[in-house]
Amino acid sequence: MCRWLAYTGSPVLIHDVLYTQKHSLIDQSLHSRLGAEATNGDGFGVGWYDNEATPGVFRSIEPAWNDENLRELAAHVHSHLFFAHLRAAIGSAVQQTNCHPFRYGGWLWMHNGFLDQFAATKRDLVLAIDPSLYPEIKGQADTEVLFYLALTLGLQDDPPAAVGQAIGLVEAVGHKHGVKYPFQGTIATTNGERLWVFRYSSEHKSRSLFFSRDVRTLRQLYPDRQVLHEVSDDARIVVSEPIGDLPGAWEEVPECSYGVVGKGDDQLQTLKVQPPPSAVSV
Amino acid sequence: MCRWLAYTGSPVLIHDVLYTQKHSLIDQSLHSRLGAEATNGDGFGVGWYDNEATPGVFRSIEPAWNDENLRELAAHVHSHLFFAHLRAAIGSAVQQTNCHPFRYGGWLWMHNGFLDQFAATKRDLVLAIDPSLYPEIKGQADTEVLFYLALTLGLQDDPPAAVGQAIGLVEAVGHKHGVKYPFQGTIATTNGERLWVFRYSSEHKSRSLFFSRDVRTLRQLYPDRQVLHEVSDDARIVVSEPIGDLPGAWEEVPECSYGVVGKGDDQLQTLKVQPPPSAVSV
Amino acid sequence: MCRWLAYTGSPVLIHDVLYTQKHSLIDQSLHSRLGAEATNGDGFGVGWYDNEATPGVFRSIEPAWNDENLRELAAHVHSHLFFAHLRAAIGSAVQQTNCHPFRYGGWLWMHNGFLDQFAATKRDLVLAIDPSLYPEIKGQADTEVLFYLALTLGLQDDPPAAVGQAIGLVEAVGHKHGVKYPFQGTIATTNGERLWVFRYSSEHKSRSLFFSRDVRTLRQLYPDRQVLHEVSDDARIVVSEPIGDLPGAWEEVPECSYGVVGKGDDQLQTLKVQPPPSAVSV
Amino acid sequence: MCRWLAYTGSPVLIHDVLYTQKHSLIDQSLHSRLGAEATNGDGFGVGWYDNEATPGVFRSIEPAWNDENLRELAAHVHSHLFFAHLRAAIGSAVQQTNCHPFRYGGWLWMHNGFLDQFAATKRDLVLAIDPSLYPEIKGQADTEVLFYLALTLGLQDDPPAAVGQAIGLVEAVGHKHGVKYPFQGTIATTNGERLWVFRYSSEHKSRSLFFSRDVRTLRQLYPDRQVLHEVSDDARIVVSEPIGDLPGAWEEVPECSYGVVGKGDDQLQTLKVQPPPSAVSV
Repeated sequence: MCRWLAYTGSPVLIHDVLYTQKHSLIDQSLHSRLGAEATNGDGFGVGWYDNEATPGVFRSIEPAWNDENLRELAAHVHSHLFFAHLRAAIGSAVQQTNCHPFRYGGWLWMHNGFLDQFAATKRDLVLAIDPSLYPEIKGQADTEVLFYLALTLGLQDDPPAAVGQAIGLVEAVGHKHGVKYPFQGTIATTNGERLWVFRYSSEHKSRSLFFSRDVRTLRQLYPDRQVLHEVSDDARIVVSEPIGDLPGAWEEVPECSYGVVGKGDDQLQTLKVQPPPSAVSV
Repeated sequence: MCRWLAYTGSPVLIHDVLYTQKHSLIDQSLHSRLGAEATNGDGFGVGWYDNEATPGVFRSIEPAWNDENLRELAAHVHSHLFFAHLRAAIGSAVQQTNCHPFRYGGWLWMHNGFLDQFAATKRDLVLAIDPSLYPEIKGQADTEVLFYLALTLGLQDDPPAAVGQAIGLVEAVGHKHGVKYPFQGTIATTNGERLWVFRYSSEHKSRSLFFSRDVRTLRQLYPDRQVLHEVSDDARIVVSEPIGDLPGAWEEVPECSYGVVGKGDDQLQTLKVQPPPSAVSV
Repeated sequence: MCRWLAYTGSPVLIHDVLYTQKHSLIDQSLHSRLGAEATNGDGFGVGWYDNEATPGVFRSIEPAWNDENLRELAAHVHSHLFFAHLRAAIGSAVQQTNCHPFRYGGWLWMHNGFLDQFAATKRDLVLAIDPSLYPEIKGQADTEVLFYLALTLGLQDDPPAAVGQAIGLVEAVGHKHGVKYPFQGTIATTNGERLWVFRYSSEHKSRSLFFSRDVRTLRQLYPDRQVLHEVSDDARIVVSEPIGDLPGAWEEVPECSYGVVGKGDDQLQTLKVQPPPSAVSV
Repeated sequence: MCRWLAYTGSPVLIHDVLYTQKHSLIDQSLHSRLGAEATNGDGFGVGWYDNEATPGVFRSIEPAWNDENLRELAAHVHSHLFFAHLRAAIGSAVQQTNCHPFRYGGWLWMHNGFLDQFAATKRDLVLAIDPSLYPEIKGQADTEVLFYLALTLGLQDDPPAAVGQAIGLVEAVGHKHGVKYPFQGTIATTNGERLWVFRYSSEHKSRSLFFSRDVRTLRQLYPDRQVLHEVSDDARIVVSEPIGDLPGAWEEVPECSYGVVGKGDDQLQTLKVQPPPSAVSV
């Protein structure tokens, strides 16, 4: 439905990651190979961390492929951790408040996929959001509701547990409404230091998700690529679909699992999906 | 906060009403005299009835004053009943789904004013909307929530009663949250045959609202104005602020009242505002 | 590069032609089969004739596939002659003034294709436009320059001669600048009564162009299609790529030729391309 | 017609200059006091220098007052020299390619004012632009044509001479077409090191223009203002209308003169306006 990319590592010019020579993320707005749709032209967004207290977010309803402002911003902003997302809308309106990434305080969130039959389940799901967070919802996208469910369930303390419970709640509410496979997709979230990525679907046929391999390994594979010598050893790119032209540079995230990269040790774990204890009566 | 206009009568080219020579509605997007803000540049909308089953709606986030598409549409579409609205946003995003008029089936709805401290009261108000209508909410504007409350409370059967109860509910919920004056504004709604307009505020200092006087009277006042001989005897314009250059052509709608024009007899009544009986426990 | 459609016949709701069930023009904004690009998402335009003195034009920089205003307009406007165009930009900016159709007085003009190396030839071509027409140029598109060249060369008197000379001038100027194949494309133009369509390229490998066959023939082929009984005998659709699901309904316009339909007899002729006599010194 | 601001000095967060507490530049998009129009809502632009080879430019057709992306960009980008411009369109379309600042290589250019009767003079002026620069013109604004005239006449070598000759040419061509007062306005241009600002009109009643006074003087006037202690001694803001709430902080640029600030000594000189020698035959 969408395409996304997350980078963490030493600061780079955003342009150098988004506008790679071959099959760049921006190319994927017109010609995705692995997406549910070849075209991802219903707006886009970039969220980035720098030295300010909260991350910057730039979102537009124009297709990314011809957007001059995105090109300018990317050519002038450096960041050690950023998200980029291309939207293919299914159902909700093409408007900035429905574009990813979503931001809450110092957190960013984006998603490729959908909550099936969201019109039927939306009211129940919105009611499960903490009333103090409710006024923060700015758009109508299923992804934003999922974000506020995860925040309600402790995203800022334990992301894998909160996301697993949020998806579990989506499944419980969906099943109540007769939805066979309520959740589909990949998710990225970050607090500006650690990056969590998730791959899961109720049907266990999830949208694709790839990690870049360890930079030291990549330097051995491609000793002539200057960029690999410029980034830090711990640099990682996570993408819904490989970018560039480096065979062997990408590893697929396994079905029903999550990864953690950024400051600290990398992890790759099975995602535990179950509704929150408090939701037994849903 | 906004400016609006409603026309009912014999079919006219929309352009002839929106782009009058002096102080037109479109001029009021730049230079309103009576509005809370001089500039109403945060998008606009037009809704019109013709021979199709549902009214057409054209909405844009551009300021009306320079919008080429609005000029084109207005210069080519005839209608016997249409709404036009210029938005001055307060709080909610500048996006098409927040632009008036709002449409549900064959009904249109627009508003100049606000629900005070809507962020605090929104959740309670949304919960009072019929769950079957809930998925129809497309934006975040207070006006849209008020529309769905009125629909929940019987707008399609008895508009004055439903609007009175919807505002009553807004006041009850507002007071519960410590809001002194929860509602402010003027409202227009129609089913394509009758036009209901409302003027009310909790503080009893409502935004201005004017009716054009009876066309036969206007013809006597301004015998040389060709347009007055072209429209039908029952033609009426209702506006948040007089347009054109015809002194004596406008009568103010009294505070806390509503009017009904269009097919059938004209009415002007006091608006009864009270929460719905079912809301006693709010 | 683009996709376009022209309709002439008895008045129809624009929606019934643009949003056909199978492979509609609007679908072609996302999934063109015959276009140089599969995606035509860099804006769109509709131009239509009714009883007003000049045709209406509605243009937008949004992709057509998700545009709510296009859907509304098409569902409410009837026309006996209209153009629709989906843009895939090559070089010039995504802005309304570069969207087709272009209008001059009562004339409309649209194009699928390009003037090769336009940056190199533009100045010479613009200088060949009549100085009285020069201020009317509103955008930067090669197509608009071609339109004003054709107007300069007598489009309003003899369209095939003027278009042939305009393309001839483009070729002469192009060759002067070392451009091998200066012109590529199909063109539609109309005065609201007759519709002229052209297919030509300097390389003689032109973009595709199709006529709908005679309505009486189509009724025999598809007696159950209600729409074929509703339109007039002289109704015609010309498209850059067939729409709908009626095999046998379309005939290809031959290479290097033009057709004329609408009020009066249909014609299909060879296009004579040569620079205007006055341009020998270019 | 427009409002603009230019900053040069030690690097600051753009937000701290654009969104001042009182009567900020952004406020002036809604409520200008000194402008020809109170509202400047037809798009905006920001151009900024950092360590990259060319300045960044962000332009939008939305009004600045409610633009979320401008707020985000300003809150995250630091610059030692930047331009901001709010547009009130007169004549040319509301589109990004008509928004200021304009960029050519490492140069930026913006303007408040107009070339009177530009439709009549445009062709002659465009013909005076160097043919090698002609393809770089992207929009239709009079300001952009003036920029390319100045570039043709040596802007990169001697800005005051080139601007004086460009305006002189505008006056010569205007007078030929019977225009009484061909030029009006203030201009800012920069190469990223020096900033040149101009105030001139053929009628000698020019749009207003103000310098901020010397920072050391301002610190004595307002010792409690922290921001004055943070910026460098050579920091300067030039504005079409004072921002903020510091009486005594601004000096008006005299009629028919220009100033130079930035790296090197400040200057304030009379502007010599005369057509280029080569234009005697215009």
